[in-house]
Amino acid sequence: MNAEQLKDLLEKVKNGDFNIDEAMEKLRHLPFEDLGFAKIDHHRQIRCAFPEVIYCPGKTNQQIVEIFARLAKKGNNVLATRADKAQFEAVAAGGEFPSVRYEEAARMIVLEPKPQENSAGLIAIVTAGTADIPVASEAKVTAEMLGQRVELFCDVGVAGLHRLLGNIEALQKANVVIVVAGMEGALASVVGGLVDCPVIAVPTSVGYGASFEGLAALLAMLNSCAAGVTVVNIDNGFGAAYAASIINQRTEQKG
Amino acid sequence: MNAEQLKDLLEKVKNGDFNIDEAMEKLRHLPFEDLGFAKIDHHRQIRCAFPEVIYCPGKTNQQIVEIFARLAKKGNNVLATRADKAQFEAVAAGGEFPSVRYEEAARMIVLEPKPQENSAGLIAIVTAGTADIPVASEAKVTAEMLGQRVELFCDVGVAGLHRLLGNIEALQKANVVIVVAGMEGALASVVGGLVDCPVIAVPTSVGYGASFEGLAALLAMLNSCAAGVTVVNIDNGFGAAYAASIINQRTEQKG
Amino acid sequence: MNAEQLKDLLEKVKNGDFNIDEAMEKLRHLPFEDLGFAKIDHHRQIRCAFPEVIYCPGKTNQQIVEIFARLAKKGNNVLATRADKAQFEAVAAGGEFPSVRYEEAARMIVLEPKPQENSAGLIAIVTAGTADIPVASEAKVTAEMLGQRVELFCDVGVAGLHRLLGNIEALQKANVVIVVAGMEGALASVVGGLVDCPVIAVPTSVGYGASFEGLAALLAMLNSCAAGVTVVNIDNGFGAAYAASIINQRTEQKG
Amino acid sequence: MNAEQLKDLLEKVKNGDFNIDEAMEKLRHLPFEDLGFAKIDHHRQIRCAFPEVIYCPGKTNQQIVEIFARLAKKGNNVLATRADKAQFEAVAAGGEFPSVRYEEAARMIVLEPKPQENSAGLIAIVTAGTADIPVASEAKVTAEMLGQRVELFCDVGVAGLHRLLGNIEALQKANVVIVVAGMEGALASVVGGLVDCPVIAVPTSVGYGASFEGLAALLAMLNSCAAGVTVVNIDNGFGAAYAASIINQRTEQKG
Amino acid sequence: MNAEQLKDLLEKVKNGDFNIDEAMEKLRHLPFEDLGFAKIDHHRQIRCAFPEVIYCPGKTNQQIVEIFARLAKKGNNVLATRADKAQFEAVAAGGEFPSVRYEEAARMIVLEPKPQENSAGLIAIVTAGTADIPVASEAKVTAEMLGQRVELFCDVGVAGLHRLLGNIEALQKANVVIVVAGMEGALASVVGGLVDCPVIAVPTSVGYGASFEGLAALLAMLNSCAAGVTVVNIDNGFGAAYAASIINQRTEQKG
Amino acid sequence: MNAEQLKDLLEKVKNGDFNIDEAMEKLRHLPFEDLGFAKIDHHRQIRCAFPEVIYCPGKTNQQIVEIFARLAKKGNNVLATRADKAQFEAVAAGGEFPSVRYEEAARMIVLEPKPQENSAGLIAIVTAGTADIPVASEAKVTAEMLGQRVELFCDVGVAGLHRLLGNIEALQKANVVIVVAGMEGALASVVGGLVDCPVIAVPTSVGYGASFEGLAALLAMLNSCAAGVTVVNIDNGFGAAYAASIINQRTEQKG
Amino acid sequence: MNAEQLKDLLEKVKNGDFNIDEAMEKLRHLPFEDLGFAKIDHHRQIRCAFPEVIYCPGKTNQQIVEIFARLAKKGNNVLATRADKAQFEAVAAGGEFPSVRYEEAARMIVLEPKPQENSAGLIAIVTAGTADIPVASEAKVTAEMLGQRVELFCDVGVAGLHRLLGNIEALQKANVVIVVAGMEGALASVVGGLVDCPVIAVPTSVGYGASFEGLAALLAMLNSCAAGVTVVNIDNGFGAAYAASIINQRTEQKG
Amino acid sequence: MNAEQLKDLLEKVKNGDFNIDEAMEKLRHLPFEDLGFAKIDHHRQIRCAFPEVIYCPGKTNQQIVEIFARLAKKGNNVLATRADKAQFEAVAAGGEFPSVRYEEAARMIVLEPKPQENSAGLIAIVTAGTADIPVASEAKVTAEMLGQRVELFCDVGVAGLHRLLGNIEALQKANVVIVVAGMEGALASVVGGLVDCPVIAVPTSVGYGASFEGLAALLAMLNSCAAGVTVVNIDNGFGAAYAASIINQRTEQKG
Repeated sequence: MNAEQLKDLLEKVKNGDFNIDEAMEKLRHLPFEDLGFAKIDHHRQIRCAFPEVIYCPGKTNQQIVEIFARLAKKGNNVLATRADKAQFEAVAAGGEFPSVRYEEAARMIVLEPKPQENSAGLIAIVTAGTADIPVASEAKVTAEMLGQRVELFCDVGVAGLHRLLGNIEALQKANVVIVVAGMEGALASVVGGLVDCPVIAVPTSVGYGASFEGLAALLAMLNSCAAGVTVVNIDNGFGAAYAASIINQRTEQKG
Repeated sequence: MNAEQLKDLLEKVKNGDFNIDEAMEKLRHLPFEDLGFAKIDHHRQIRCAFPEVIYCPGKTNQQIVEIFARLAKKGNNVLATRADKAQFEAVAAGGEFPSVRYEEAARMIVLEPKPQENSAGLIAIVTAGTADIPVASEAKVTAEMLGQRVELFCDVGVAGLHRLLGNIEALQKANVVIVVAGMEGALASVVGGLVDCPVIAVPTSVGYGASFEGLAALLAMLNSCAAGVTVVNIDNGFGAAYAASIINQRTEQKG
Repeated sequence: MNAEQLKDLLEKVKNGDFNIDEAMEKLRHLPFEDLGFAKIDHHRQIRCAFPEVIYCPGKTNQQIVEIFARLAKKGNNVLATRADKAQFEAVAAGGEFPSVRYEEAARMIVLEPKPQENSAGLIAIVTAGTADIPVASEAKVTAEMLGQRVELFCDVGVAGLHRLLGNIEALQKANVVIVVAGMEGALASVVGGLVDCPVIAVPTSVGYGASFEGLAALLAMLNSCAAGVTVVNIDNGFGAAYAASIINQRTEQKG
Repeated sequence: MNAEQLKDLLEKVKNGDFNIDEAMEKLRHLPFEDLGFAKIDHHRQIRCAFPEVIYCPGKTNQQIVEIFARLAKKGNNVLATRADKAQFEAVAAGGEFPSVRYEEAARMIVLEPKPQENSAGLIAIVTAGTADIPVASEAKVTAEMLGQRVELFCDVGVAGLHRLLGNIEALQKANVVIVVAGMEGALASVVGGLVDCPVIAVPTSVGYGASFEGLAALLAMLNSCAAGVTVVNIDNGFGAAYAASIINQRTEQKG
Repeated sequence: MNAEQLKDLLEKVKNGDFNIDEAMEKLRHLPFEDLGFAKIDHHRQIRCAFPEVIYCPGKTNQQIVEIFARLAKKGNNVLATRADKAQFEAVAAGGEFPSVRYEEAARMIVLEPKPQENSAGLIAIVTAGTADIPVASEAKVTAEMLGQRVELFCDVGVAGLHRLLGNIEALQKANVVIVVAGMEGALASVVGGLVDCPVIAVPTSVGYGASFEGLAALLAMLNSCAAGVTVVNIDNGFGAAYAASIINQRTEQKG
Repeated sequence: MNAEQLKDLLEKVKNGDFNIDEAMEKLRHLPFEDLGFAKIDHHRQIRCAFPEVIYCPGKTNQQIVEIFARLAKKGNNVLATRADKAQFEAVAAGGEFPSVRYEEAARMIVLEPKPQENSAGLIAIVTAGTADIPVASEAKVTAEMLGQRVELFCDVGVAGLHRLLGNIEALQKANVVIVVAGMEGALASVVGGLVDCPVIAVPTSVGYGASFEGLAALLAMLNSCAAGVTVVNIDNGFGAAYAASIINQRTEQKG
Repeated sequence: MNAEQLKDLLEKVKNGDFNIDEAMEKLRHLPFEDLGFAKIDHHRQIRCAFPEVIYCPGKTNQQIVEIFARLAKKGNNVLATRADKAQFEAVAAGGEFPSVRYEEAARMIVLEPKPQENSAGLIAIVTAGTADIPVASEAKVTAEMLGQRVELFCDVGVAGLHRLLGNIEALQKANVVIVVAGMEGALASVVGGLVDCPVIAVPTSVGYGASFEGLAALLAMLNSCAAGVTVVNIDNGFGAAYAASIINQRTEQKG
Repeated sequence: MNAEQLKDLLEKVKNGDFNIDEAMEKLRHLPFEDLGFAKIDHHRQIRCAFPEVIYCPGKTNQQIVEIFARLAKKGNNVLATRADKAQFEAVAAGGEFPSVRYEEAARMIVLEPKPQENSAGLIAIVTAGTADIPVASEAKVTAEMLGQRVELFCDVGVAGLHRLLGNIEALQKANVVIVVAGMEGALASVVGGLVDCPVIAVPTSVGYGASFEGLAALLAMLNSCAAGVTVVNIDNGFGAAYAASIINQRTEQKG
């Protein structure tokens, strides 16, 4: 609840439009819907630019279905991340949302009732290897659901630098670049030194041994010698795309 | 064996009520029952406020069944934690304890022969997300078995602060608050700054990547900038509830 | 700002006692005093039981002096933790607080203008070794400043169990026990199995090699097999005492 | 060297404006100046939006002085980070740069020959505590050197939530928010849930014990439950400000 | 090959009993039998007190069977550790070793053709909990195979100290005590302070969360405040028993 | 793209053999083949001595099949690492590569259309234990595919030093020695002190408990007191063999 | 207090030699001397074979002096570990103990009023390098103070295996071998495979980089492939010698 | 002692040239010189290609001086690593070695009595930044002392890729490339993908925060996606150069 709204509420109380108890109610109950096991934050889009998203792990199928339904009822696009096939089938079962679909590589459940108008600016997503594609897909689906224009560049890791250099011109047209890389995560630094827009680095758990499930790439990206690189959690394609979308949305298109 | 009892024993020896060997026996064998693979601490309720509880992992079904039976024989409430369904079925199999039940979310086996008188004071349990509910359930069942009054507030994580603020009035009535949160575990600090009672923080393994199975939340809670927050092991709903119950039990009710 | 106060404020607005802008001001500025580099939370005592405390590391002498002065002006007891001698001298320099004193072992600056009425209940602080005394002292000074009755039991580590057992009767009279131990931190578990009150464990950085600056003791205490033990940060005597004081304050005295 | 320039170069070769060896020279030597121990990247401003910055640790005074001089010769603003007083004095010694200054809190050497036109958009920097101010200062000086408008909000950590809430209206006017926090780093998540612009989180090494020199805050921020938060290295105020400036520079001002 | 044998060999060369090539052969090939994938160290008993033991993980069934057969052929007792049921069945399949048996709790394959004469001295094995019994069983079977007298004390963890104290007299009769404990591993320190013989501590992976698969117990035991405690790898019941047997074997029996 | 080729390209542009756009095309597209999800680096053999190799984890069967086919089409040997049986079967399914085979121990798919001429120099691979053989096999198959002469010495770990010493003469004839060892990884140091050629150490994840999936061996090898030892990732038999092959290829044979 | 003594005490109570309160006193106060900041365990020699030792870090000079005096008063040998020169001088200052000496390499304060009769058996201490000598010295002084015969073998690390092999005959005569090694700690495994007596491994913090202050050596030693090796804390020469002395003391001399 | 020499020795024994005791002496004492605190391995050059080197940390000045003198006496080049100025002055003090010099950046003491003939092949050393120069200097001095031809390329880190690409032609002429990089260590992967010779990566402790003293660079290099990269310990310029020299020495020069 922002200051504007608080002021408005106080004025209504002063004018007698609300009595005290009504105001108390408003202050406490308005911005979310309480399902007991979850409190849905319908207010989020106003406060934080984009509507709430369902993170599936640790939720029962029944909980996912119910939250999904409440969000869908508002007419919003609905996105559920890290969903397995069974969770998708639970959501699709009732037949309530005929257009709901499962993005397999990205492991996402998607309901898109509103045609999205693509942002003029471009978000470029690059992956170091083919194995990083699932995380990149999560980023791509997320950004597209948030109305962004996205281009994907796969397998341009630094061991074959010419594969990256061959795409530099395209990358330099982007408003934001998301770099998705496992193993040593060096791609973030190299890209960060070649473009003049924000770079969001996503370490992935691709690798083995001393990659320690993505720790090596995470540390590398945090220590990037290229300024302008920021980092999200390991395998967090969603978070990177969300941040990229916030940035892209308000940025003027590159000439 | 506390000092009182030791003094009493010594007096009996002096008076000739016990001979030396009997006294030695008493000192060694009285406070527990030895099953070979386990030594049941029937004395615990006197020494430590509450009776012993069975921690299931690493025990064979047969061991669990036998320990359960010995504890039940004393007429106590019996609680077995981190039990899977098969372990419950092993306990229930003989039909010896018709009222034994399985708390699925909490993964607990519960036998409650004695009606519990609820404490006047309130233990509030809050979770940051829906996925933290299983750990919160373990805490809730534990505290209720120990005779406490409990209220559960789910999904009030700090990313939607108004969900928490909408429940602050209720939380401020509690004698103890248990905060259950994974990911970055920030909820403990925020709650810790809003209430004047003890806060017990339970980090959960909810999260992925750099949450390192709950390490991120654990470290965050240990470093809480809000004084008055103490912490238990990752996913240890039982331990938090046990500590909260000890505190609540002797605390006068809040006005 | 709690619900009670919000309701009161709203009523004043309704009655015309406050106009909107005044109310906005109140809501925004009342509970803290802004020094630019710090926002002093004078409201804290009402909201969280005890007044704010100054954590010295990373603050300039000038900042400490100014915050100290503002807190002292309210007539409260003032406590500054992890202060070195130079920081104390900076505070004492002006001569404004003739009774200010430096607790050397505890590394605290203390100003105690109000005579404290000791709580009836007892907080027992036990240390595993002599080297743990500084952390225990921080806890002792803190609890005493918060008006608690404290008793200190030093050097009762588990390698000489009889030293602990010789003090068990005394410990069993406490309302809360704070266990301060470095190295393997085993004392927390042993004490936790011998008393029926809450045990707050403080791992210390006492040790070398694989103690990893207190990590060994921290992990041990988090994994305590004795239920009812909660843990605070390494060397955090202040936090343990703060939590113990909150508990002790509302607990009826032990018979 | 971007594609545009490569194309231009190729055209000059085709037209005979450059011979092959000249072109080879250009391709190899143009974009940096080689001092032996360092290769100064004068080209950086064109490629990456802002000129190169000197990272002082591990460099000898003589190396710093020489690099500083070369960058200054181009008429650019020059910034040297993590500089101690002695390094500043070495730079100032020759008297070559009369306007060079030392930013003590930020530990930076600054030369600002060109008046900076402040960006219309606002970068807000918030700190959890007073001890986080040095890192925030590094961010502030950096962003200002890059021509940004900056506002600083100190000591609004989550243990006194009202201090933050009292400044929310101001924060919501920013184009980018930089959150600087040590200990448990919870502030990033709370701010991330209250604003609709990008949030860049800077974990600091403020804390002790299980903060492990900033690791706790770093992990917390990477696991933030608030989408839209990205993270930089521990204590990396410079990097956060650099990324924020890139974003702010191309973003339309908020209404 | 020890010095004695080397001297003998040299004398044979001098006397012409061996020619140079024979001597070279001897020096290279005598002490082990080469199966290609494994080199069996039949010499080990002479050099290191006890015969070689088979560590099963990572070996194919066929490799285990073959190594087992070669060792058995020498008439020695054969021991295979960390064996699963299928590996046992592969060994038993041929019917070559009718007396071979599977120790289920200890996960060991055992062939004991030679009646073992038990050492006069006692090795006591104590476990903190019931879940530590498998590791203790590995230790027990190992020590017995090496001809030692062993007594097992289960579930005497420090949370119920009287269970341990009730067995102290028995423990004090041992020549070596092996302490097997997971979680916080405190039992090693407590036992170490109560007996005057060597204590070998075995941390186990029993626990969850911040036990980090036995790391907490391992660190605790390495930091034991009780002198005389040495430590082996997590869950290494075999290694502890092996070391204990070497010690016990040459130690005079306690009066 | 190396300098030679760049010079050549520039000359063609100058002479009018290529127009600018063709040159741009060449520069961007020549050195790899783009499959969308992967960019195959056919150029690698020229730039880096050996052709590209397929790392299977995280790739779909379809992706592996397609990349395999493209590499095979060039007539090269094709190698796919860390492949499971199902991935092999997918590749073999079409019948397109009748000679393709699956190396089970090494978990590799191998297609070897070109007879390899073995290098004159020898690469020796030694393993500490039998359980290290799979990693050693990956190294062996890799080196042989790259045309090297390889000899394998298994189970010569340092606990039975004579097994190693018995093979020292053979090892001293090698041009490169690859040491494959898990647990404490001591073999690398011992071998490093006995030979005068480069030693490449491969830590393996063989072990349990405090081996932490190969971390113990990795750290040991990095800290080897024997100069001349370099290290690759845990279980990275491929990488060790690749590096050894590069070295061996250009080294004159040992007398 | 052992069972024997308890029985005796009970008999005295029965016989009226002690009244109850006297018995209670005895039980509580007899076995240690309470200095407030320390409880001296004079009883330790009876219970644990050797008298108590002073660990200096974290103790004030005054505390060390006082504990030292109390222990000395009993006529025992007194040993203070990890003492710096200033601490020694504080102890020596009063002139009370004319024969007190400072062992510089070992950093120990030693008072040896009683001539020690050396044990017949030998404790061999071997170091991997010269830099490990201080830790070995701590072990040597400790063992000698405990009446053991000790021989020191320096700089026999595995990179020059012949240096070790040249001393094997001597090592094989020892009853216990203490291996002191930093860096990769491989020496413990090699020695463990060559002798038939207990090996106690002491990892040292000698090394840099990925030795992580001794962690590499610690992990290596815990994972030793040589059975019979047990491990103590990093740099814990005292602990190793203490355990070795307990073992050696009761072991018959080797022929 | 290699097999050749053993055979020779045996022949001498057979022929009566040596008696048994002499042979035993030879076998034990020949290959090293025992100073008590150190055993100098004069034999090393024969066994391991290059003479022994002195690692200074943890050695007293006196020990360094004595070892230095013994090595110098053999007429060899002498190298002491990680030496501080005081250690150099101790060595230089006696005036025994007038040509001894101190390499300040490399922190090495160097005595070079024999003119070195440079190898025909080239070792290229590249650093990511200026702060990596000390480690690179250690590598350079080492390799030159071992008779190698070395070229140094400083400050070519990946954030300004053109600085590296401008030197690629030169790098491609090397026989071995040593990559010295801190922070994220990405340079190793990029170089590894551009050259066809062995790449030895040296992570440095340059960086702060989540570089964790070089851990980030170390992990990155171990996980390099470029095959052919091997890794040495953090800051181990000596080790990298030693390995590179072994390789370079036997490699034919590149055309």
